[in-house]
Order: sequence, then structure tokens, then C-alpha cells
Amino acid sequence: MGRKLVSSKAIFESDTMRSPVVKSCCVLLLTLFLSRHYSVSATKKILNPKKPCKRFILYYHDILFGGNDVANATSAATANATKLGNTDFGKLVVFDDPITKDQHLLSHPVARAQGFYFYDMKTIYNAWFAYTLVFNSSDYKGTLNIMGADMMREKTRDLSIVGGTGDFFMTRGIVTFQTDTQEGTKYFRLKMDIKLYECY
Amino acid sequence: MGRKLVSSKAIFESDTMRSPVVKSCCVLLLTLFLSRHYSVSATKKILNPKKPCKRFILYYHDILFGGNDVANATSAATANATKLGNTDFGKLVVFDDPITKDQHLLSHPVARAQGFYFYDMKTIYNAWFAYTLVFNSSDYKGTLNIMGADMMREKTRDLSIVGGTGDFFMTRGIVTFQTDTQEGTKYFRLKMDIKLYECY
Amino acid sequence: MGRKLVSSKAIFESDTMRSPVVKSCCVLLLTLFLSRHYSVSATKKILNPKKPCKRFILYYHDILFGGNDVANATSAATANATKLGNTDFGKLVVFDDPITKDQHLLSHPVARAQGFYFYDMKTIYNAWFAYTLVFNSSDYKGTLNIMGADMMREKTRDLSIVGGTGDFFMTRGIVTFQTDTQEGTKYFRLKMDIKLYECY
Repeated sequence: MGRKLVSSKAIFESDTMRSPVVKSCCVLLLTLFLSRHYSVSATKKILNPKKPCKRFILYYHDILFGGNDVANATSAATANATKLGNTDFGKLVVFDDPITKDQHLLSHPVARAQGFYFYDMKTIYNAWFAYTLVFNSSDYKGTLNIMGADMMREKTRDLSIVGGTGDFFMTRGIVTFQTDTQEGTKYFRLKMDIKLYECY
Repeated sequence: MGRKLVSSKAIFESDTMRSPVVKSCCVLLLTLFLSRHYSVSATKKILNPKKPCKRFILYYHDILFGGNDVANATSAATANATKLGNTDFGKLVVFDDPITKDQHLLSHPVARAQGFYFYDMKTIYNAWFAYTLVFNSSDYKGTLNIMGADMMREKTRDLSIVGGTGDFFMTRGIVTFQTDTQEGTKYFRLKMDIKLYECY
Repeated sequence: MGRKLVSSKAIFESDTMRSPVVKSCCVLLLTLFLSRHYSVSATKKILNPKKPCKRFILYYHDILFGGNDVANATSAATANATKLGNTDFGKLVVFDDPITKDQHLLSHPVARAQGFYFYDMKTIYNAWFAYTLVFNSSDYKGTLNIMGADMMREKTRDLSIVGGTGDFFMTRGIVTFQTDTQEGTKYFRLKMDIKLYECY
């Protein structure tokens, strides 16, 4: 910083500052000044819903334990539905679900989703999720932590990616859920459109 | 900073500074220099606890299911209290609670709070919450995701708003709880003072 | 950006550029320009995994309620393990655990950890946590809110600090878990290496 000030002094002492070059200089400074402010607001603007810094689609497969299918099941109800309505209000399911790049349940999983969901409405099926996507592949190592409401009646619904670790260090974002298929109470598949807005 | 300003003063006092162009240029440079530093620190300063970018008060109404009141109840215990103490340690309640702008339970809800709380102390009542505020009104569409400890013995307590979607895209903030009323184990109302510090 | 470069080019091509003063001016402008960009990227660079703005180590002690040890126990299972495998899949434990600065269970607690964990794999022990560190000491007053997967088979594992209140207003970070000791199903101690990357 010291050097900069010395240079300034040298400039200001010279006579040649009256030249049109000086005027250009001022214009340039002004441009700089304005553009700097633009940049600062841009740091905000990078959080544009349409412009994530990273985006990918993953599929989540949930096979609910029925009592005799330990080998296949990937989730289990640890608290049963209450009697508040007929849509499983209070049913709490813990899961360790495979995550694949395409829709096929048997594709090689690129991550696991570990967490829980529960149903929370008394007239329709509606859920709430909190979970971690655990990546341990050649593509990514690390985790994404996610929570939010899964309003199952909506075509798409957004949950918050509230943190990340490893390759996803300190990230935040949005994951958009879409029900891809539903087979009774046994199996469902979600399309997860993962959009990160803070990447480091 | 002090020394730097003194140097600038010295420059301005020099004889060659009489050209108005040079003076303007100098002022501009100084402005640039100072404002740049100010701007960068300002990006931090916008997160001042007393200056949220958005703030509003909402009321949360919880009517615990008693077994015969399906129509009125908005929450239900899905796991019962353990025997660790006498203050419901471990009792886990799932809720889909109406959120109103004023204190009246029967006012038109402006949002739903979907999530859960549980009691977690063995000598006093103390709770922990994780939930989503789901807005679907003319004012707001979107969600706020919230988690944190509800230290019920304190007059006010702060929880974290860890993410948002829709109109609350990527927001963060603090929600301050205050118990507004408590009617036995059947009904309680919380005043939620919602303060957002990151708005996009 | 394009226009700015053209202006600069115009200046550099002008005859009057031979004056060393003008050259200094240009150097100054360039310095300004570059330093501005440096500053902006620096706001990003402060989130360097190796350079938290605050860091401290805490120990977490969990004594699971066995039925007859109300005085000692600090946690209790509120939902039992399911029959999906033999590693407690679905067992859900609520806790109000003491947090100490050193490894000793009986040291004066500097905070409480209030929240829950559950086991979520069918072949090995693996857990998921969400909790609040509640500080109420002369050092700190406030909370840290944390969630993430606890892959117990890994030597260290990272969870997300998704928010904070009080002295930890709006903070974010990573907490690295390390199992410090494990005594059957009765007691375990975690070393929590807390690294904050956003401090206000």
C-alpha cells in the first residue's frame, strides 16, 4: 500500500496531468469505480435460482422393510403411524437408501442417502425429510446435508441443502424432488435435482 | 489508516495540486481506495443482529392429539416419553401446525409449520425443534427451514433458519421463540420473531 | 469488460504515454484493478478448509439410560431398533449430553449437546445426528446447530454446522467427529473438532 501512495504523489506533482490523457484516466477511474460496485452486487447475484455453480440429477430408491425382506429393504419404520387421520401421520422411517445416476434400482449406487422421513398430514400423504447424501466414489467424496418438507401432492418441491463436507465443503443449495414412481407402500423412487449455489 | 490519510493530506497541500483536474482525480482515487475497503467490510457488516434484511412476526399454534379429537388436533406424539425423569424426556411429536399473523388460533393461517419436536431434559421441560414453514399465500410462496433448541425456561430463545426456497430462496436467519400461552398439555402458542439476514 | 480494455488500449497507444508519470498512473490503475479482483475473490478464499475463523475441541459424553440409572444417564432410546439387520437399525436416541473441554466425564461441562441420533445401517453400526450445542458459560453464550452422518467405521467424519445464535450469530462450519472411547452400549465419548468458517 505504501508504494501505491508514493506513486500517486509522483503523478500528482507532474505538470503533464492537464493533458487529455489525464481526462481519459479519470474516465477510466470512474469506470473502475462503477464496475467495482457492480462486482460487489454481483457476489450477491451469483445466487440466481437459474444459475447454480454445480448441478446434477440423482435418483433415490426407497424399499420399505416389510418384516421378511431384510436383504432387499433399505428403510424401516421405527415409529408407527398415530391414529390422527388415515394417512400415516407420525409414521417415522429411517433409511440408508441407494442413490443412482439413472432410474434403475440395480445400477451401481454413486452415493447413499442416510436419514429419515415421516408423514405429517392427517388428510393427505405429505412428508418431511432430513438426510445426508454420502458420496464415496471416484467422482465425489464428501457429504451433502439436506432438510425440508416433501409436499408429495406437488409435482415438484424444493428442500434446502444446508451444508456440505469433503468435495462439497461448506456448500449450500436447493434439491428439487419429483416423484418418479410409486409402487404401493413398498417402493418409491424420487428424482433429485441437486443445485448448488455456494461452491468453494 | 491514520498514516495513510496524513500522507494524502500532504499531497493535497503540495503546490502542484492547483490543477482542478488533478484535485478531482485525487479525490476520486481516495474515494476509490476508501470505498473499496469499506465495501468489502460492509459485505460482512450486513449481518448485524439488529439489522435483518427482512423481519416478521408469526404465531404458531399446537393442539396435541388426545385420542378423540382428530378434527381439532394438529400434532401427535409418535414416540412416548421414556422413563428418564418426569418431564417427558424422549416424547417425540410430529406436527402440521397452523401459522397466523395474530394470536388467534382461528385466524386464517398464512403458513403451515411441518416438522417435529421432542422433549430432552430429565428435570425440566425443554424441547428441540426441526421444521419447515410452508408459505402458500398471496404474500409469500416458498419455505423456511428451521432447527434448534427450544430452552422453554428462557423468556426468549433463538433457533437457526438454515435455508429457504421459493420467495425465500437461499435465505438464512434467526427465529426467536417466545411462549405466548400454554394450556396444560393440550395447547400452546409460540410467538415466532423471524429475522432474515441473507436475502436474495 | 470489453469497453474497458479498449479504453486502456487507446491510452497505451497515445504518444503522451512516454511520460513516466503516465506510466506510473497506468501501473496504479492496474494495481487498483487487480487488487479489487483479489479482494472479491478473497471473500471466497476465507472459506479455506485449513483456515477456520475459529476453532476449538470439545468432548461429548453419552450415557445411555438402562432403566435404573436415572441419575447418571444423559440419553434414552425413544424408539427401539427395528428387525432390519442386527445393528440397531432405527434405534432413536434423544440426548442432553454434557460437553467438556477435556476427556473427563466429570469435568465441569462448558456446554450441553441437545438433540438425537439414530442408527441407520443393517450390517454395521452407523449413525445420523442432529443437535444443538447450548453454551452458557463465561466463555460463550449461544448455540451451534449441527447435523450430518456419523459414519462410525471411519476414523474421522465431518458433519455440518448449519447455523448459530448468540456469540455464534449466523455462523457456519464443520465439526469433525472422532470416537474417543466406547464402553459397550453404555457409554461413548466423541472428540468434536469444531471449525467455524463464517464468523460475524
